[in-house]
Amino acid sequence: MKKEFSDQIIIDGLQYCNWNRELFEDAWKGGLTAIHATLVYWENTEESFEKIKEWDLRFKENKDIICHAKTTNDILEAKKNNKVAILFGFQNSAPIANDIYLVESFFQKGLRFMQLTYKNQTPLAGGCFEPKDSGVSRFGKAVIEEMNRLGMIVDLSHAGKQTCLDAIHLSSKPVTISHANPSFFHKALRNIDNDVLIELAKKNGFIGLSLYPYHLKNLGKCTIEDYCLMVKQLINLIGIEHIGIGSDLCKNWPDEVVMWMRNGKWTKKIDYGESSSKSTKWPEQPSWFTKASDLKNIFESLVINGLSDDHAFKIIGKNWLEFMKNHF
Amino acid sequence: MKKEFSDQIIIDGLQYCNWNRELFEDAWKGGLTAIHATLVYWENTEESFEKIKEWDLRFKENKDIICHAKTTNDILEAKKNNKVAILFGFQNSAPIANDIYLVESFFQKGLRFMQLTYKNQTPLAGGCFEPKDSGVSRFGKAVIEEMNRLGMIVDLSHAGKQTCLDAIHLSSKPVTISHANPSFFHKALRNIDNDVLIELAKKNGFIGLSLYPYHLKNLGKCTIEDYCLMVKQLINLIGIEHIGIGSDLCKNWPDEVVMWMRNGKWTKKIDYGESSSKSTKWPEQPSWFTKASDLKNIFESLVINGLSDDHAFKIIGKNWLEFMKNHF
Repeated sequence: MKKEFSDQIIIDGLQYCNWNRELFEDAWKGGLTAIHATLVYWENTEESFEKIKEWDLRFKENKDIICHAKTTNDILEAKKNNKVAILFGFQNSAPIANDIYLVESFFQKGLRFMQLTYKNQTPLAGGCFEPKDSGVSRFGKAVIEEMNRLGMIVDLSHAGKQTCLDAIHLSSKPVTISHANPSFFHKALRNIDNDVLIELAKKNGFIGLSLYPYHLKNLGKCTIEDYCLMVKQLINLIGIEHIGIGSDLCKNWPDEVVMWMRNGKWTKKIDYGESSSKSTKWPEQPSWFTKASDLKNIFESLVINGLSDDHAFKIIGKNWLEFMKNHF
Repeated sequence: MKKEFSDQIIIDGLQYCNWNRELFEDAWKGGLTAIHATLVYWENTEESFEKIKEWDLRFKENKDIICHAKTTNDILEAKKNNKVAILFGFQNSAPIANDIYLVESFFQKGLRFMQLTYKNQTPLAGGCFEPKDSGVSRFGKAVIEEMNRLGMIVDLSHAGKQTCLDAIHLSSKPVTISHANPSFFHKALRNIDNDVLIELAKKNGFIGLSLYPYHLKNLGKCTIEDYCLMVKQLINLIGIEHIGIGSDLCKNWPDEVVMWMRNGKWTKKIDYGESSSKSTKWPEQPSWFTKASDLKNIFESLVINGLSDDHAFKIIGKNWLEFMKNHF
């Protein structure tokens, strides 16, 4: 008997949206089980606690279709109750500043993913846009140990290569690169070389494959066939268990926000980030992935392009859940 | 006619004290013209503004003998008015977090020195205690440019070697290492190799020589003769104009504070910093330098050990003033 899409575990391993009812409904109708939602990039400690607080109202107003998940059991419960589970993540370590005790404070508020760096160097590690990547620092090592102890996932998206390799080996629990693609698919500072992918998988780490145009072959014009081919090539390289989707879907933001993501307050000049054309706008999504519910397109294309249903379901969510079980 | 000590410019290029009337009086009676006072190490933005505010009361209660200096002209005015000029400095960049606009905010409050790092890596640069020194980062480069623009001195004390070399070359104005000694005098992570000292001097940079026991030959048992010999050797290496005193004098603090300086909140384990014997106490000062007014001992010993009066006065303060004139 053919398995129904809506009965399966469907997980998006990263989205950054200006959330509203419409976006939650799309995810809910699209059958999503869970979304790892980015709360902050450059925000300081206080601002980050505020971002967490803002979710109270969202959970209250949308309690018929979403809920906050702190454990994998919460995700399974949400599935049973026909709700989309939301997991909190930070795309930077700016919120903890120099204070290791803040890791637990944020964990208690539900934070389950934290990146060591966002493009730039932090007190913890080196970013992928830095001319020199320090690798993991003294503080970074201490924070990884603390995250391991608590069950908070170390996310290496936007980290430098040496930082990735250091963290993969330093962490006692498997780490993730929640949203990036292999460099063999598209050369970008943010994408990941084969040697790192192999080390990641060796230590049971995990990559969520991105749908953000700057990470795709031919950018927004990437075909779904090319994307599926990349998935199959990656399965051959590191094995199917280590792969999921982290779409990096950014919805409902004005163009100012993409420039803020690039510049924060760290430069008075304009940094265009990944845009080689110096665009100040959000890049155009591929037509086959413009909203959360389009995960179904990816599932179907994976099957059309030769994956078994079971394998396609692993990629589309089951693997993420199994990976998260290592932590919470 | 012999010049009077008290008529000269006497500057200590770094002290970290828990200030009270007694300490100000000692500096005043000792003939000090100016002191660069450390306000923070690990403090965040808000805490750092608080530390600045705390000085309002000190300036008010001790206005007969101290004043706040924001320019070299203020220092000269203070001298005329028989007051000790206090200059503000941060021994870390933690206060500016990821926000370049805070550099100007702190400058407006009187901040005139800022270290890029304090032992550990920061978003700006690498620390001297890190296994790998990143050098100056993207943000670090932008901040140095901003400090140059404003006239805030880049201080490389506690920075890694690559960071020192990068900053010396990136900065359009001369930089300082406000409190450290040459490695040839005493091998320590905090002390400075000859090649860095030479590059520093080539770009008109400046070193304040330290009296902190961990930076001295034979630590607290260092003789004043050995110290003076070091000064003379350094003059031979980089020329007299680039040298002053940055005593790193720490007064009136309980032992907890030395451990806080080492550990901040960045580690849950104990880091003993520069103490190879794992001491948790303040190290013992050499008997000939236990208070600000002991700068006179150093001046006199420099003369006894062969420096001319003019040269000894340069080392004991005149050079610092000339260096500061490059900035404010």
